[in-house]
Amino acid sequence: MSEMKNNGEDLLIGRNPVLEALRSGREIDMIFIQNNGTDGPLGRILGLAKEKRVTVRRVPKAKLDELARPFNKGNTPANHQGVAAKVALVKYASLDDIFARAEEKGEKPFIIACDGITDPHNLGAIVRSAEVFGAHGVVIPKNRSASMNGAAVKAACGAEEYIPVAKVGNLAQALDELKERGVFLACADMDGVRADKLDLSGAICLVIGSEGEGVSKLVREKCDHIVRIDVLGKIDSLNASCAAAVLMYEKRRQTGN
Amino acid sequence: MSEMKNNGEDLLIGRNPVLEALRSGREIDMIFIQNNGTDGPLGRILGLAKEKRVTVRRVPKAKLDELARPFNKGNTPANHQGVAAKVALVKYASLDDIFARAEEKGEKPFIIACDGITDPHNLGAIVRSAEVFGAHGVVIPKNRSASMNGAAVKAACGAEEYIPVAKVGNLAQALDELKERGVFLACADMDGVRADKLDLSGAICLVIGSEGEGVSKLVREKCDHIVRIDVLGKIDSLNASCAAAVLMYEKRRQTGN
Repeated sequence: MSEMKNNGEDLLIGRNPVLEALRSGREIDMIFIQNNGTDGPLGRILGLAKEKRVTVRRVPKAKLDELARPFNKGNTPANHQGVAAKVALVKYASLDDIFARAEEKGEKPFIIACDGITDPHNLGAIVRSAEVFGAHGVVIPKNRSASMNGAAVKAACGAEEYIPVAKVGNLAQALDELKERGVFLACADMDGVRADKLDLSGAICLVIGSEGEGVSKLVREKCDHIVRIDVLGKIDSLNASCAAAVLMYEKRRQTGN
Repeated sequence: MSEMKNNGEDLLIGRNPVLEALRSGREIDMIFIQNNGTDGPLGRILGLAKEKRVTVRRVPKAKLDELARPFNKGNTPANHQGVAAKVALVKYASLDDIFARAEEKGEKPFIIACDGITDPHNLGAIVRSAEVFGAHGVVIPKNRSASMNGAAVKAACGAEEYIPVAKVGNLAQALDELKERGVFLACADMDGVRADKLDLSGAICLVIGSEGEGVSKLVREKCDHIVRIDVLGKIDSLNASCAAAVLMYEKRRQTGN
């Protein structure tokens, strides 16, 4: 019947909220269903959970009562209707949400795409920098990427509340969509044009690759330009979140704010 | 008699290496001395360890034999002479080493000072960025600061082998010395001059404060200028290592390389 942040995790209780979360494609870590509950709505939840490959745990009523305790009103126990779900801390956005934000601010879209950033500290720091530098959103792929959970949320320092983070099934396709919508794609790599020699002032998506492997070949081929941060030492690259911050800074410097 | 990197920690064995490490002020985590060993050289080691407040553990010969095993040559056991020491992974440098490096390269000194960076990931990432951006050294204080150990060394990705890191007893005094030697001090804070409006091209030390508290009052007062990175979002600051990378980038951009 409701939703609550609880010990750093989001909990949904009641049949409709859980069904709704499943239908909307919201990331669900686990569903708890009361032992032997199989009637209509619970059956639909079980079916959808199977279809979406969400883990379901059968638990006694007492366990659900305990999970739902934060929802109690005084002495009245919360009515969990035999079901609860632990959902992702962050409500992921869509690409449309990101464009809407740019339009709302009257600015050209400024987007960060993460290609294979698996370290949650780096992902969180990138989301934080993106918010600080006034980007309109961050795009991360569903697979081979850290999610906005635990350590990433901690490193983001609350920034995830103010900037849309879109999780996409296929990053290359998402980049195609950005291109179609007039966004210039610039990926960070060592053999590119020096950041301050490239015009980053227009509608732009900065694509940040993983530390080990950089930007993937498929993603790199989609990019309009490769942008480089000069290396003067013996170590050949910055930490991914540092590189992302430097490029966002350079973009803002060029825009004049 | 020798030194070896061993399970991510540096181990010294033999009386002279341990005495030498104590005399040189090298950071020592712990000294292991054979039970009942008190003769001349071991007595000097015990005396110096007490003076320098280094922890000493009395252990049986078998424990020293085991510690020293990586130094064995085939079937010949290493001669540990009844003493071993676990020392810091990184050999800290002095301010002189940093100036020497700048001179060697024929460049104006470019130094990073960390004021209270306690997160080892951040410290390691700062050392990595400093090396990448061609700084001549990093200065960290002895107290209330992460050291170049474990997670910091991992985050530095080997950069600590190529750039001097000086650990100083008193950061404010070290900054005084830098000033006397002609280095301009710029600390990062929100109420400063925008980074690209400040001339960072000369001999400079960028002072990076801790995330929670920023640069300490005493250190701030010593600085010639406060330098700011513009915040366009709701979160009021970048991660410390991201802020450091952005300022180093801006310094290099101004220098034209």
